Amino acid sequence: MRVHLLSTAVAPLGSGLGGGVETMVINAASQLQTLGHVVQIIAPIGSVAAEVTVITLPGRLAPTAVGCGYDAPATLQSDAFLAQALRWLAEQARSGDVILNFSYDWLPLFLSDFLPCPLGTLISMGSLNRSLDEEIRRLAAGHPERLAFLSTAQAASFDLNAPIRRIPPGLDLARYRYNAHPGRNLCWLGRIAPEKGLEDAFIFAARTGHAVTVLGVLQDRDYWEHLVQGYPKAPVDYGGFLRLPALAEAVGQFQALLMTPKWLEAFGIVGIEALACGTPIIAYRRGGISDYVLDGITGWLVEPDDLDGLCAAVARMGQINRNACRAQVEQGYTLVQYGAALVDWLRTMTAGTEHSTGDAG
Amino acid sequence: MRVHLLSTAVAPLGSGLGGGVETMVINAASQLQTLGHVVQIIAPIGSVAAEVTVITLPGRLAPTAVGCGYDAPATLQSDAFLAQALRWLAEQARSGDVILNFSYDWLPLFLSDFLPCPLGTLISMGSLNRSLDEEIRRLAAGHPERLAFLSTAQAASFDLNAPIRRIPPGLDLARYRYNAHPGRNLCWLGRIAPEKGLEDAFIFAARTGHAVTVLGVLQDRDYWEHLVQGYPKAPVDYGGFLRLPALAEAVGQFQALLMTPKWLEAFGIVGIEALACGTPIIAYRRGGISDYVLDGITGWLVEPDDLDGLCAAVARMGQINRNACRAQVEQGYTLVQYGAALVDWLRTMTAGTEHSTGDAG
Repeated sequence: MRVHLLSTAVAPLGSGLGGGVETMVINAASQLQTLGHVVQIIAPIGSVAAEVTVITLPGRLAPTAVGCGYDAPATLQSDAFLAQALRWLAEQARSGDVILNFSYDWLPLFLSDFLPCPLGTLISMGSLNRSLDEEIRRLAAGHPERLAFLSTAQAASFDLNAPIRRIPPGLDLARYRYNAHPGRNLCWLGRIAPEKGLEDAFIFAARTGHAVTVLGVLQDRDYWEHLVQGYPKAPVDYGGFLRLPALAEAVGQFQALLMTPKWLEAFGIVGIEALACGTPIIAYRRGGISDYVLDGITGWLVEPDDLDGLCAAVARMGQINRNACRAQVEQGYTLVQYGAALVDWLRTMTAGTEHSTGDAG
Repeated sequence: MRVHLLSTAVAPLGSGLGGGVETMVINAASQLQTLGHVVQIIAPIGSVAAEVTVITLPGRLAPTAVGCGYDAPATLQSDAFLAQALRWLAEQARSGDVILNFSYDWLPLFLSDFLPCPLGTLISMGSLNRSLDEEIRRLAAGHPERLAFLSTAQAASFDLNAPIRRIPPGLDLARYRYNAHPGRNLCWLGRIAPEKGLEDAFIFAARTGHAVTVLGVLQDRDYWEHLVQGYPKAPVDYGGFLRLPALAEAVGQFQALLMTPKWLEAFGIVGIEALACGTPIIAYRRGGISDYVLDGITGWLVEPDDLDGLCAAVARMGQINRNACRAQVEQGYTLVQYGAALVDWLRTMTAGTEHSTGDAG
């Protein structure tokens, strides 16, 4: 099968500004290719990905849905990457192909009624915008096979009435070395932006005296400066934006990963990246995180925004077996499982569309 | 041929809030039907049109492009009439059909790459928005057969490099009775909204003492009240929003029609409606108006916003032969000519798409 993967429209692949979606797109392409499919990623100019075909197209990047406001209508411009990419797909995609869309935007969802082949969207964020919600609910009711979600909690935010297809991300475990002997420091990992709640990691560090290393792309520099100035005594240092293999090497060295999102975290792929290295998690029970943070086994879940709970949990880290963390990923979040889930989805999407793939009848 | 006419998305047909486009849609449907095509209009709920099939669909009406601002991106909402209508067309339209779009919106232009049959857009306004301009320029360069314009001046506002197809509107002359013996009063006819420049008709009336009757839908009531209060001594009265046949009966009774637009008037269908009744025009030389107002023959053209010129022109109305006004419409703006131009356009659009129209090969 020929599979076109439409990448996030907010940033080039490899920039980190697309967050965990970047990893999901690349891993999906890589695994589907391994399974014998003809795969290409369509992504904004500047995108890079090893060992998979990337078609880069020009165009204005999309604003992230986070900051747009719930009632803002979806907006689009002729020179948008997304418009160009969808036009390219309308031309290139043939009956028999499938498009997997990883961008969280109104237009590809809407256009799934207008393309020569099925377009399925892996919804990568929780409910953020009324127009998107309505389009997702419309598809869930009429074309549920066109949707997949990262976690049950994320899907629930859209208030759907039908069962949903859950496709959590999977990791290539060979790239995440297990480390049984970490240091004492904690780590915070992700895009540095307000919805990710980095301020709570600063407060944690200031209150407990535990050093926290922050890793991730500096998406909102003002936010970062504001935190550094606001908590001058917090033992927090910035370790840069790391890519694999350096990322995995670094993450394995921490006693625990802090996850303190202020929004509904759809999944939090950095969580399973940490677990894969043996690093347990202290996290707010928000969104998809509780799918893999098993309280007392792979880390500690505290109630959202409960800073006292966050600080208290670190004292109980000795109860967590780092082997159990690695095992959790081996059991549920491998590239093989991810690929199998994607293939099952592709089959469902194409099951109802037995078109001929050529002109000869 | 099966022809789907997508009506303006800003208002139901028959409301008057869609302006001259409403007449163009209904006349196109009626004439194409007379010529043997299977025609249906897709229009917002509440639409009415005699003797043609109207499919009404629910959904949020579109904001008019006039007030959105040049740099505003296109907005897209799932519950929009336009989204529902385009989805309906994607389902109902077959290869071999044609869609004629009369809505001035980004989405139908963009979607012309994604539909099972050709979609042509009759552009009904001048340049107002960057995203629309870009989409129009893109189509003009790559798919010129998908575009038609009302006037050369309107098309020029988009800064196109290619020749354009001009399809001015046509009237059913049987519905416009010629009146050789009008009264002394003047008339102003159109949507009552700032871009139509009604204030200049008030100033004209105040300065010259000539009575002016305003006919048209009260789209912007505050604007109207502001004018009435601002020019208390101007002999202006409001004659209501008239439909055919009352409209034609009324318009024929005036010495002249004033056309004082502040925007680039793409065509100004009310102008040929007046001429059809024998009523000449005093107008600003702006946009498509000068296509049918021939200076000294069917009225007087004055430079845009030249109020002195406007007031002076009324003294020269005796030089205009009302027969010449009627003849101008008979020569260039009949339903038959409009229908022939539309059919030629349909043929050009379908010439390159010799798909089979059924499943049997």
